[in-house]
Amino acid sequence: MIYPKKLEQLIEWYKKLPTIGEKSAERLALATLEMQLEDVENFSKSLLDAKKCITKCKVCGNLSDTETCFVCSNENRKKDIICVIEDSKSLFSIEKVGNYNGTYHVLNGLISPKDDIGIDDINLSSLVKRVENLDNPELILALKSSMEGETTILYIKKLFEKNKKVKISRLSYGIPMGAELDYLDVITLDKALEDRKTISE
Amino acid sequence: MIYPKKLEQLIEWYKKLPTIGEKSAERLALATLEMQLEDVENFSKSLLDAKKCITKCKVCGNLSDTETCFVCSNENRKKDIICVIEDSKSLFSIEKVGNYNGTYHVLNGLISPKDDIGIDDINLSSLVKRVENLDNPELILALKSSMEGETTILYIKKLFEKNKKVKISRLSYGIPMGAELDYLDVITLDKALEDRKTISE
Repeated sequence: MIYPKKLEQLIEWYKKLPTIGEKSAERLALATLEMQLEDVENFSKSLLDAKKCITKCKVCGNLSDTETCFVCSNENRKKDIICVIEDSKSLFSIEKVGNYNGTYHVLNGLISPKDDIGIDDINLSSLVKRVENLDNPELILALKSSMEGETTILYIKKLFEKNKKVKISRLSYGIPMGAELDYLDVITLDKALEDRKTISE
Repeated sequence: MIYPKKLEQLIEWYKKLPTIGEKSAERLALATLEMQLEDVENFSKSLLDAKKCITKCKVCGNLSDTETCFVCSNENRKKDIICVIEDSKSLFSIEKVGNYNGTYHVLNGLISPKDDIGIDDINLSSLVKRVENLDNPELILALKSSMEGETTILYIKKLFEKNKKVKISRLSYGIPMGAELDYLDVITLDKALEDRKTISE
């Protein structure tokens, strides 16, 4: 045993976090020892507070410490436009852009037969109910272009097939801003060609 | 405010740790929410436990949850050989190699006039006292080859100049195992030439 026992334990806890390996965990644990006792007490409390107070918004599934999240409880957001996303991380990213004025629906997962994640394992049934109560619903599917993302997109399209009032769109594929064409992967370049936009009248 | 308040606070705490930026802190905080409540409770407790229980070994300055650390309290370690290191991280690295059977002296810093860190700000005076009580003391200076490291090495050499029984050595400079010569920096290559070892009789 090289580390004092309590330090060893703390390193093990840090190692349970994603992307934190042996070396990083040691660094974080040693940095914790360097912190003021008061700060460590507050950090320790903050961990528990976050875990205990944050649940999911009962409307959209977003992380929230109130019954409905800050988007759903905002009167000025367009309730008819719902951006369907995999998790709250996507929501934070879109909110940071600051241009979107609709609402969200957080699936908290994607359909994945190989991982045994089916329709009922993600937050889909409440989406159907939300859409039913809207006059001109538009669903923007902002899911990643993986096997699981595509499967989920297909399923959602099918789910609302018979409901003619629902408009469904997806994020555009294309060249990321500032990217060099010769460094782009073939599939993205292919999609960018396919989805080209006319700029002359 | 994009994040729920308690999540925002937790992200801020993670951001105080070294090498953890905005994006990583968000990832770690979200991962914390995904953990079981019991695990978060234990993690939270572990932070406080480590901070409260771990102090410095009264002999060598190493991190320890007992009065003397596991090296100093081990009867089988050679007390005459003292490896002088900057911090406990160096100790963990050398202990992981597993071949060193002496003891350590953790300076918990290096002399650095530009940062206003002087002789009395690092754990040096207790080293003098330790050495006085030994019959054949050897100090192995395992400090980094920075300005601060070299200044500290010079000072320690001077400190024991008049004590003829003290043998002082430093780690060897040279080519790291497996390194390609053409990728090596000039100073290392120069040191490796200078410190070349005769291998013929």
